[in-house]
This record gives sequence, C-alpha cells and structure tokens, in this order.
Amino acid sequence: MNDHRQVMTEYLAAFVEELVQAGVKEAVISPGSRSTPIALLMAEHPTLKIYVDVDERSAGFFALGIAKASKRPVVLLCTSGTAAANYFPAVAESNLSQVPLLVLTADRPHELRNVGAPQAMDQVQLFGTHVKDFTDMALPENSTEMLRFAKWHGSKAVDIAMNAPRGPVHLNFPLREPLMPILEPSPFAVTDKKRRHVHIYYTHEVLEDAVITQIIEACAGKRGVFVAGPLDKKAFSPKIVALAEQIGWPILADPLSQLRSYGTYSDVVIDQYDAILQEETARVALQPEVVIRFGAMPVSKSLSKWLEGLEDVMFYVVDPGAAWKDPIKAVTNMIHCDEHFLVQALTEGWQEKTEPSWTRMWHDLNGKVQAVMQEHMAELEQLDEGKLVYELREWIPERAGLFIGNSMPIRDVDTYFAQIDKQVRMLANRGANGIDGVVSSALGASLTEQPMYLLIGDLSFYHDMNGLLMAKKYGLNLTIIVVNNNGGGIFSFLPQAKEPKYFETLFGTGADLDFRYAAALYEGDFHEVKDWNELHDALDKAQFHKGLDIIEVKTNRYENVDGHRALWARIATEIREALTE
Amino acid sequence: MNDHRQVMTEYLAAFVEELVQAGVKEAVISPGSRSTPIALLMAEHPTLKIYVDVDERSAGFFALGIAKASKRPVVLLCTSGTAAANYFPAVAESNLSQVPLLVLTADRPHELRNVGAPQAMDQVQLFGTHVKDFTDMALPENSTEMLRFAKWHGSKAVDIAMNAPRGPVHLNFPLREPLMPILEPSPFAVTDKKRRHVHIYYTHEVLEDAVITQIIEACAGKRGVFVAGPLDKKAFSPKIVALAEQIGWPILADPLSQLRSYGTYSDVVIDQYDAILQEETARVALQPEVVIRFGAMPVSKSLSKWLEGLEDVMFYVVDPGAAWKDPIKAVTNMIHCDEHFLVQALTEGWQEKTEPSWTRMWHDLNGKVQAVMQEHMAELEQLDEGKLVYELREWIPERAGLFIGNSMPIRDVDTYFAQIDKQVRMLANRGANGIDGVVSSALGASLTEQPMYLLIGDLSFYHDMNGLLMAKKYGLNLTIIVVNNNGGGIFSFLPQAKEPKYFETLFGTGADLDFRYAAALYEGDFHEVKDWNELHDALDKAQFHKGLDIIEVKTNRYENVDGHRALWARIATEIREALTE
Repeated sequence: MNDHRQVMTEYLAAFVEELVQAGVKEAVISPGSRSTPIALLMAEHPTLKIYVDVDERSAGFFALGIAKASKRPVVLLCTSGTAAANYFPAVAESNLSQVPLLVLTADRPHELRNVGAPQAMDQVQLFGTHVKDFTDMALPENSTEMLRFAKWHGSKAVDIAMNAPRGPVHLNFPLREPLMPILEPSPFAVTDKKRRHVHIYYTHEVLEDAVITQIIEACAGKRGVFVAGPLDKKAFSPKIVALAEQIGWPILADPLSQLRSYGTYSDVVIDQYDAILQEETARVALQPEVVIRFGAMPVSKSLSKWLEGLEDVMFYVVDPGAAWKDPIKAVTNMIHCDEHFLVQALTEGWQEKTEPSWTRMWHDLNGKVQAVMQEHMAELEQLDEGKLVYELREWIPERAGLFIGNSMPIRDVDTYFAQIDKQVRMLANRGANGIDGVVSSALGASLTEQPMYLLIGDLSFYHDMNGLLMAKKYGLNLTIIVVNNNGGGIFSFLPQAKEPKYFETLFGTGADLDFRYAAALYEGDFHEVKDWNELHDALDKAQFHKGLDIIEVKTNRYENVDGHRALWARIATEIREALTE
Repeated sequence: MNDHRQVMTEYLAAFVEELVQAGVKEAVISPGSRSTPIALLMAEHPTLKIYVDVDERSAGFFALGIAKASKRPVVLLCTSGTAAANYFPAVAESNLSQVPLLVLTADRPHELRNVGAPQAMDQVQLFGTHVKDFTDMALPENSTEMLRFAKWHGSKAVDIAMNAPRGPVHLNFPLREPLMPILEPSPFAVTDKKRRHVHIYYTHEVLEDAVITQIIEACAGKRGVFVAGPLDKKAFSPKIVALAEQIGWPILADPLSQLRSYGTYSDVVIDQYDAILQEETARVALQPEVVIRFGAMPVSKSLSKWLEGLEDVMFYVVDPGAAWKDPIKAVTNMIHCDEHFLVQALTEGWQEKTEPSWTRMWHDLNGKVQAVMQEHMAELEQLDEGKLVYELREWIPERAGLFIGNSMPIRDVDTYFAQIDKQVRMLANRGANGIDGVVSSALGASLTEQPMYLLIGDLSFYHDMNGLLMAKKYGLNLTIIVVNNNGGGIFSFLPQAKEPKYFETLFGTGADLDFRYAAALYEGDFHEVKDWNELHDALDKAQFHKGLDIIEVKTNRYENVDGHRALWARIATEIREALTE
C-alpha cells in the first residue's frame, strides 16, 4: 500500500516538477477526490502558486485570464466526471484566442471506465478538436522509463501550449486508490539522475531577405493601410507606428491591438474607421491598393464589410502559427511570420513614402468624427453607454488594465475609446466572443495588471457571477463597471428588434436583478451610479479601495439604440460634407 | 431575400412541428443571434412551451430536470460558440443517467466555419461520445426532399433520445443571414402533403418463456436478494414488492429505487443495508446464493463492496438497453429485458418460497438498526445532518418530490431515510454524480412534481446559484434545504482529512457565503434555522409560500463526521450482538 503511494507520489511529483521547470507558475485547482494526489503535490511544491476555485467553469476562465495577461502557461486541475466538462467553454475560448492552458483531469483507472462507475465518464479526447493535444496518461509507475515519461509529457504539454498558435493541451490521469501521496519527506527535495528535465527552445518564424524585398517592391509608394486587429505584444506597438509614419500609411487600430493606448499619441493611428466606413462616399474615397493585416480580425463590422468588398487589392495577412483567421476570405498573400521580425525588416528596407494626402485624408476624417463625437458627448446629460466609455477613457489611470466584455462593451469601446497618450492594456475574450467567463478572466488578469477594470454588460456579469468568489477569497483588486440595461442590449441593433411579439421574451430577457446583493454576497463595495458625478465619485472611491468594487450604471436599451443611431447619422452627414467639400 | 427567409422558415418550421408531433412539449432556449429563427419559430408554435434561460449551463440542467421528472424529451436551443460548450455538463449527465434531451445548436454556415469568424467554433461532434447521435444538418431548403429531411431528423432525434437507454441527441443547424423567419402568416397554420409525419412505435425487450422458466428453475427456493438501484418507474414498485413477498426474498432498496417511498410499507424492503453490511459478521451471515439487480448501482459503498466480494453467487443484472452499468463486474447473468415484463413473468411462474428465516434475518437486523437510529435521533439535540434527513422524512408531505444533491445529501438520504408509507418521488443526478447543475435540475423537475423539495450541500448550491433565476422568472415553487457546513463535507470522510496541512485549502474550501443575499437576489424567502423547532417552522412556512424558499441549516463538518461515526459504532455493536445471540 505504501509502495503504491510511493510510486504514485514519485510519478506525479516528477510531472509537477517538470511543469514548473518548463515555466508554469500558477495552478488553478477545483476540489475533488480523484485529483487528490496531484492537488496535494501542487500545494506541496515550493514555488508553484495555487488558487482553489470551486466552480470549474469559472476556474477555467480564471486560469485563462492569468495566462492571457501573464503570457505564461497556467495549469487547471479537476476531478473526474462532469467537473471536466465544465472546463469546456474556457478550453474552447483559449483554443481560439491562443492562450496557453494545461488542462489536467483526474480519471478513474481503466477497470472503472465505461462500466458505470460513479463520477466516471469518457474523458478520452474529451475536448475533441478544441485542444492542441491530448494525452491519456499511463497509470503511475516509478521505473526510470515511466518517470521520464511523466516528465517528458510535462515538458511536451508546456511546449505545445506555448508554441504559436498557443492554446490548450489536455492530459488525463487515471489514478487508483488509495489517493494519498506521501508528503513527508517532500518529494520535491529529492534530486537524482532519473529526474531529467527538457529545456525547450522557443523559435519564431522569419522570412528570407529576398521575400522581404519582394514585399517592399510590391507595396512601396502605394496607397496602403495597416489593419491592426487584436494583438497583445507590448514592444510591437511603437515599432508598427514608427513604420507607418515612415512609409505614410494609416493604421486602422482595433482597441485590442493596443495601438490606441500604448502610451504615445500618433497621427497615423486611425480609431474612427467604424463610423467613417459606414458611409459609402468614404468607402470609395478611401479605397487602398494594399492592406497588411496584423492580429486577429478587428471587431468593427463596417471595417470587415469594407475589407471584404475591396477589389484589386493586395491583401497581406500576417499570421504566425498558421491560424488562418480570415473570415472574410480576403487574403491574397499569407505570411506566417513573427510580427516583430516582419516590421523590423520592413522598416529597414522600406524607404519610399506614400503621398502625404493619403494619410491626411484618413487623419482629417478621423478628426472630424472625433469632433462630432466630442460635441455630442458634451451635449449628453443623461447616463449613456457610449458616453460611459468616453468618460472612462478620460478617467482611467495610466498603466491600468481594462478587460472588456463581449457583445456591446467591446463594440462601444471600438466606437468610443479613441486613441489616448496613456498606456492602458486592453484585454477581452475574443476567441469565441462568448459572454461567459468574463468576470473570472478579468480577475485572473488582475493578478498581472493593476489597477484593473472590467467593463461588462448585465447578462455577461450575471453569467459568471460565481467568478466573484475568487475576488472575495483572495482579496483581488478589481473594479467592475456593470452596464445594466436589464438584458441583451445588442439584440436591439438586430432585425428581431422589429418583431415586438417575442422580442423581450427571447432577446431582451431582462433578469431584473438587484446586483447590490451580488456585491454583498461576495463582500464587494457596491456603487449605484445615477449621473456623471456619481460615476466619477464611484471610480475615485474604487481606486482607493483595494478589493472588489462593483459600479452599476443603469441605462435603457431603447434610448441607447436611439442615441447610437442619432450620433451615427450626425457623423454620416459630417463625413459626406467633408468628402464633397 | 424574402425567398431566403421563406425557405428558412418552411424548413425550420417543418422540423419544429415534427418535434412537437413526436412528443416534445417544452423547449429551453438561451438567447442568441444565430439561433434567432429557431427560437422565434418555437415561440410562435401554438403548443410548445418555451422557457428562456440566459446561462446555458443552468439551462442544460433545467431541461434535464424537466425531462427526468416528466419522462418526455425536452429541447435545448442555443446560439453558436461557447454557448453550446456550456451544455456539456448537462449533456454528459443526461447521457449517463439516461435522460432524453434534444440539443439544438445554431452554427455558422460552412463558409464561416474554421475561418476565424466571430462566435464560431467547431461544433461538429461537439459532445463526442457523450451523445447518442449527432447530425450536422443541411442549410435550409424547401424542396419536398429537404422538408422531409428536416422532419425525418426531428422524428429520428426524438426516437433515439427516447429509446432505451435514453439519452441526449445533438443536431447542429448551420444558418445564413438574414436570420428573421416569416411569422405572418404563421407557418404552423399551413398543412400540405410535403408535411409528412413519422409515427414512432416504441418497443420493449422481452424474454422467451423458456428463458423465464430457466431463470425460475435456477433461482427458486434459493436464498436470494433483489438489489433495487436507482429506477424511476412508478408502476414497477408494487410489482417487485409483491414478487418479493411471494417468493420470500428481501429487496435491498436504494432511496432512488422509489421503493422506500412508493406509498405502502412492506417488510421485505430493507433500507439499512448500508449500516448492516459494514459489519463482517453480517456480511457472512447474509451471504445469498442469488442476486437479481434492477436499476443502476445503488449509492451504498458497503453494499457495493459486499456484492463485489460475493463468491459462488448467481448475479443477474436486469439492464434494458444494454447500458452495462456494473462497476463491480459482478454480473454472471445479463438480462436486457424490460423490468415490468420480467417481474410480471416471474410472478406468474415462480411459486416456490424461500425458507422464511431468510427474509426474517434481514428484516430483524434492519429493525434493530432502525431502533438504534431512532434512539440516537431522540437523544440528538443540536442540528445534525443525519437527523435533518430523519426529520425531513417524517415531515415531508404525501406525494411530494424530493431532489437530492450529490456528495453528502444522497449518502445521508441513503443512511437516514428509512421506508415510509407515504408516496415521495426521489430524484437525483446520478449519472456522473456531479455537484453541478443540481439547483436547475430540481427547478426543472418542479414543473412536474409538486410540492418539490431540494436537499443540497452549500458547495453544490453555490455551483448552480445562477439556476435560481428561473425560479424568480417563472415563479417556480421549490423549497431548498441547504445543508451549509461551509465546504466539502464529504472530504472529511476521506483519508486526506488526516493531512491537516492542506486540508482546508484544497478540500474543505469553505466559501463563507451568506446565502441570505442569494435569496434576496432571486427574490426568494430565506429561513435561517438554528434548531429543530425553527426547521419545522421554516418547512411549514415554505409549504404555504408558493415560490422559492431557501432554508439554511448550518452544521459543522467536524462534528458531523464524529456524529456519523458514533452512530455507526453503536449500530455495529448492536448487529454483532444480534448475530451472536
């Protein structure tokens, strides 16, 4: 019996140790029986930081948030059965948004699989095509070969999760009772020759000089635009801006490209294309000859449609790791190359500047939209979802992190969060764009970014309210701004809004929840905001309160649509006038 | 454009109509854009009842609860992306616990799949081996063939979900924009020849007379026991009891077999085997020659171990649908036969009665344990998890439903809920035995069973707190008794309880939540119970309050283990004495 425990301890400790040596610093554990030995060994490990999260769905997104913000692989661990199925939303999101997760599930041994044993279900290939790799591990053994096997799989899992495109890796561990490992003496104190470690050398993809020259020759002097979609590589922002300034191209910068908030203001960064490209005259006048896209697809629908409709355009997609994210099927030139390297190489070789009128036209239109918006905002007295973002942009402290909810918040940030000369890191779950798990992801990210803000709608907040437990439990510092329009605001912009018969039942779906009780349940400070002064007060208070703050801004879905539409109409007139001047 | 909408409407209406004709009465819909046409058509259908649940995980379990209690197939509908992944826990549970669910997911059309489109992920075979059938539907067309295709798949899905062993079926619907169906005139008013309907004739498995005779010849007169695991077929209970009385065999009846609460009291029903079989002397003295097991595996661990250890025994497993649920690998005779038919046939042919001393020994021991327990309970003054079940059993009204949470509650019901002469339907999620989704399942079941009670632990309650929204939204009547021992009580019974170093961190995991705020958030009545009088008061109040009641019973995990163990020791002594008399 002790022998079983000793063997199990050595095997699992070897695996855990290898994960840590390969770069894992955090594990998010959900309580369970079958996972006992791995959980205890992780707790016992001298450097691994563990977080315990009872709800596996929230745990998955919490780990995803840590990994997204820290850019490190993060471990998840749960017991057998439906526990693991609760990870599925976070696993699918991490796969699509390229976040490195190591999903460890404990399983029954083979003699208890597919025989109707309690808390057992088929966990082999549990996440199907939604993980980069799956291994059904062997039962613990402590031969030299099997200890190497355990460590080898630890390294391999980290390597695959971290290689472009990053993503989740699933390992399933069959374990027999008794499940108690031996912690005295600590298995991590032992070092011997069986405990090898694999050093992993990460590479990046580069292009031959000749190809770079080819690209420059094809593009130089042409009317081109950079499209910068979601991309979160800090050093990249000033580089691409410098290149754009050097060659005279505008950068259409999604908020998640970080280019609207990388710390400096630049004229080449265009942030109002969503409004501009809703106008046919602008779509025609701004037609480029070349597009070079970095990052994933931007959120703007008018941008997507415009890009999709461009004819006779050279369309480069820069796509390290060959993720082929191009829903508009616009690509003509596919480049699987590291973005830093490419921009560096282009900067060195690309001297010719496109005629200044090209960038000026973009910049002028951008400025006109900003002016209309400023005027519109100055006139707005009542609480308004757009102005909320506009105000937040002014208010948000230097070096803050901003996690943005899906559905309306990300679209509002796209529309109303113009470039600032502050550094604000913008994060969102834009793999599958779900409204699930957002609270947990923001809390996970708050471990890396401080101060951290979350802008989220009421349905999305409700969906992952369980995630708030981690804030209470670990004293995490996060300010949540809940835009509460009592339901699914985005549907008011869709055709079903004209079908009043079932609209509120099926799409509005107001939950009429008083979130002050959610704040009380998780011991956060609650701020109900009824006007702009109260918003600023609440933000100021939250800034000096270390812990969970929930600021609720109640808005009206119907007024919101009207407000958005009135602004767009005003902008449209302005753009048409500008282009016919 | 209208043509696209017309075609889509006809195709999807044909499918929805066929589901209803095949027996579907309820659909649980989560809001989303891609699923718009199906959702609107379901809302428009004249007889289909729809429930809208924002959190897809809870929605899955709510549908499962309806289907479990009503024994009808229930439809789930959500949009594309991670929404569908949130169904996974409920899908896995319904597959293992044989509950008929029809999982409909909206998907992007093929041109937007695997190209990085927003809110899109691979939904083909999304639930892997955890559904009985999967179909990736065709894009809408309204040719006669394709309308038949839509209807054919509607019928087929219901048929497969309802055939033994019942379970989930997944259909994935690619849909193109525009997503608005045409509701005027109602597509369900139209009838034409293209609208065929498939009548499904459900069968059941029977045995040849000769085989029945063989079984009777092999078993008659022998010392045999019936083991009745989870099985929820109302007419079956009196039949098996009559057979057992006729042939002189005891029935070891799991609470979920319904035999402890089918409305009549019978001496042959044994409910204290969990305690009895913990004693070696009893295990030997009660050794049978034949076991006939109905239903899934009972919850009792001592029963499982005893059955597993029996040598030279004929072990019949009655298993319609060939689910092969036999984790102890004890079966020697596998019968894939309808339980009603088998019991009827055995009753007709089986005249010989086993010597009366056999059942008497079981009955006497059972009575002795009950007496010890009664004495123990009378002495107990403080709140106690075991006594809570004991009291609830006395108090619970005739014809109530009792949904039982996993982990400790189901074990406590097994131990402390002895046979009563009331009719109480016992329900639980015993497929994968997860603590997830229990609140929603109980709420779903409350649509069929009234009054409905849920006995649940605090972690499980927290895990599916979002499920409470349906109670608020639809005014559902459910009384929840939360046994709040601030953490995972079951772990205190496991070996890790002796490893204090990480016990509270990894296993105890007390969340310290004040559930009165959860009650306030969802507008339920909250009852804090500090003694037995308060418990009875709270139950009385809840009985006359139509809506959500949350009764919180705070207990102590450490005292609870000690209490359980003290009682077991007392019982053990009693049993040993009885058998050596």
